[in-house]
Amino acid sequence: MKPTGPIPAWFAEEEGMLLIGGCGAASLVDEAGDTPLFVYDMGIIEAQVRRFREAIPKKIDLHYAIKANPYAPLLARMTGLVDGFDIASGGELAMALDAGMDPARISFAGPGKRNDELEAAIHAGITINLESEGEGARALTVAERLGKVPRLAVRVNPDFDLKGSGMRMGGGAKPFGVDADRAAALARTMIDGGADWRGWHIFAGSQALDPMAIIETQAATIDLAARLSDAVGAAPPLVNLGGGFGIPYFPGDERLDIRPIGVALDTAVKALPDILKDSAFAIELGRWLVGEAGVYLTQVVDVKTSQGETFVVVDGGLHHQLAASGNFGTVVRRNYPIAVANRFGREPSTQPVNVVGCLCTPIDRLGEKLALPPVAPGDFIAIFLAGAYGASASPAAFLGHPSPRELLLG
Amino acid sequence: MKPTGPIPAWFAEEEGMLLIGGCGAASLVDEAGDTPLFVYDMGIIEAQVRRFREAIPKKIDLHYAIKANPYAPLLARMTGLVDGFDIASGGELAMALDAGMDPARISFAGPGKRNDELEAAIHAGITINLESEGEGARALTVAERLGKVPRLAVRVNPDFDLKGSGMRMGGGAKPFGVDADRAAALARTMIDGGADWRGWHIFAGSQALDPMAIIETQAATIDLAARLSDAVGAAPPLVNLGGGFGIPYFPGDERLDIRPIGVALDTAVKALPDILKDSAFAIELGRWLVGEAGVYLTQVVDVKTSQGETFVVVDGGLHHQLAASGNFGTVVRRNYPIAVANRFGREPSTQPVNVVGCLCTPIDRLGEKLALPPVAPGDFIAIFLAGAYGASASPAAFLGHPSPRELLLG
Repeated sequence: MKPTGPIPAWFAEEEGMLLIGGCGAASLVDEAGDTPLFVYDMGIIEAQVRRFREAIPKKIDLHYAIKANPYAPLLARMTGLVDGFDIASGGELAMALDAGMDPARISFAGPGKRNDELEAAIHAGITINLESEGEGARALTVAERLGKVPRLAVRVNPDFDLKGSGMRMGGGAKPFGVDADRAAALARTMIDGGADWRGWHIFAGSQALDPMAIIETQAATIDLAARLSDAVGAAPPLVNLGGGFGIPYFPGDERLDIRPIGVALDTAVKALPDILKDSAFAIELGRWLVGEAGVYLTQVVDVKTSQGETFVVVDGGLHHQLAASGNFGTVVRRNYPIAVANRFGREPSTQPVNVVGCLCTPIDRLGEKLALPPVAPGDFIAIFLAGAYGASASPAAFLGHPSPRELLLG
Repeated sequence: MKPTGPIPAWFAEEEGMLLIGGCGAASLVDEAGDTPLFVYDMGIIEAQVRRFREAIPKKIDLHYAIKANPYAPLLARMTGLVDGFDIASGGELAMALDAGMDPARISFAGPGKRNDELEAAIHAGITINLESEGEGARALTVAERLGKVPRLAVRVNPDFDLKGSGMRMGGGAKPFGVDADRAAALARTMIDGGADWRGWHIFAGSQALDPMAIIETQAATIDLAARLSDAVGAAPPLVNLGGGFGIPYFPGDERLDIRPIGVALDTAVKALPDILKDSAFAIELGRWLVGEAGVYLTQVVDVKTSQGETFVVVDGGLHHQLAASGNFGTVVRRNYPIAVANRFGREPSTQPVNVVGCLCTPIDRLGEKLALPPVAPGDFIAIFLAGAYGASASPAAFLGHPSPRELLLG
């Protein structure tokens, strides 16, 4: 047997049926009409937001990085829960505006912004986090053509990284932002060029589970923002401290305790350097807000054996769950938390099973050597932590299967 | 510098501009309206088909596995070039029929066929390659309900694999087909159940570059088909020998010479065991037919430096070219063949550059430490071998960027 990641503790069952947002998995499939199905529970997202608000000082705004899950009904709900959206493309700009988010609360990061994206962003009045001197020059040119004052922040490639993070975004040569030693000069050029300067965006890494690493990185980020602001000689309206809050996907992972992060931030904001005294601050989270709120439900089509191994074949697969298959930025495949939704909490059989997707490729594996209760065609397999980087981050068109359904609860 | 895979030898330039199907890359972008753009050259596909026809005995049919590239105009052209289509889903069935392929020449493999897909397949009169005893039983049930005689073949998980193949599909416990020692019994059950038995589908692996490995595997496949047929006591109408023909993606890869494969097959078909004397044979190819015919063109948005490294940021990325980014079934990222399309064949600069996509994630790398001519915003980057498993096998919706354009030449 191989272990799986931890199933979030709040998932319960009723007569062996997994409950999501208080509803049985099978009835959710009925409601949606078919599998494969992503179910997102707003209740869990709201609880995460509350956890953030309780632990983190009021001075720190909460932004949602919509790339984690841009499902339109979910975005519309997020608009009322968070203080801003972070977007990564012109397409996401349209989604953010459609969801009803105030343009003044939207900021746009991304290393390859095209001129048409800069134009749409400046036209809408959102903040552009500049990734390079070249992008800054293009933004001023586009703004001049439009007769608009662009709202520009500078994204900084920090000279430190977030230790233990799943994805390092700083601390080395990176395509993101400008190196810290050139950031002040770029901000000064933009101010002199007539931009409405919005401040700093400093993102050192994501998906960390160690509060001490996040505390250390946030302290370094505030320090860097202060040094850069002093060098510019202007107070930044906003310092985006980045994200980094992780969720436990894999065996041995433990939930991040954000309370010590809040305590450290409270101390930090009470002792801010003069130049940051009037600045607003934000933490930008995607995965941490929505990841644990999603469950992917897929139906068992076949159970077969080959050379003594059992394969549970489902009607979903890596075309909806690329990350869970181990093919999205991971070197070694590990099992996401997974269960038989209609035998939830039941005793596992002693025979390990593999759960594979319906794609005709050996890389379509959703679970290897699992301890699951006995499973038969018609059963439902649940993959947890499907709320972030699932439906929108997978090759949905691959092999011509239907797009997954999505359902928002609560 | 890190090496790149070999650019196919037939790509030429005119005044420094890469020619695809005789047209300059920049004018193709004009024609399509924008980047990112996949260009497919039917001339190259036709040349591959000719190479197959010249080298491989007439007795062996050529099938196209449409999963490699299901672009509708390309499928319509393939209909007239090959002897059959292999499909992997109900969606691909609809595409194959839309393309005008005769249902009698379509066969359907895939480990997770749902009942609605079996129903569509039986209704259309295509051949289903059964992946398990359970699927066989379901097919008979569905056919009876429809009042149709189902056309059924048995997919065999062979007791050998294709050595050196990029993806092994046999030679161990696998979710594909039924183990060789159970295949004859399944065929017999289907025949006794009233099916129109179509024969065997035996697919041992894909993406091999060693002709000797393919020759050895094909010999073993014919031998296995004969043994299984003897055990059933019925001659198979068709033996699908699988595919396995690879194309050179990476440094050191050499083009597969299929002529010795043809010579060996010629000997084999002249000495067929009695039970296979009247059988048809097919080889099923996807990547080998279309992979080298495609070029992905993306425009440079920014050229920036970070800590001494140069990053060329383009408006495409892993959302269109997941495999080239190294995130699709590969453990170690290697460079696909890549060039500056409007400086094709020009002297490289001595400074290595990284080509990264526009996505806000560190895994969006299209080329690392490349020797490229000097490159500036507005230039076009060409990634070769983009004809297979590109547009349809990538997470197109990720981060909300537009879908790539596609253009078929010739």
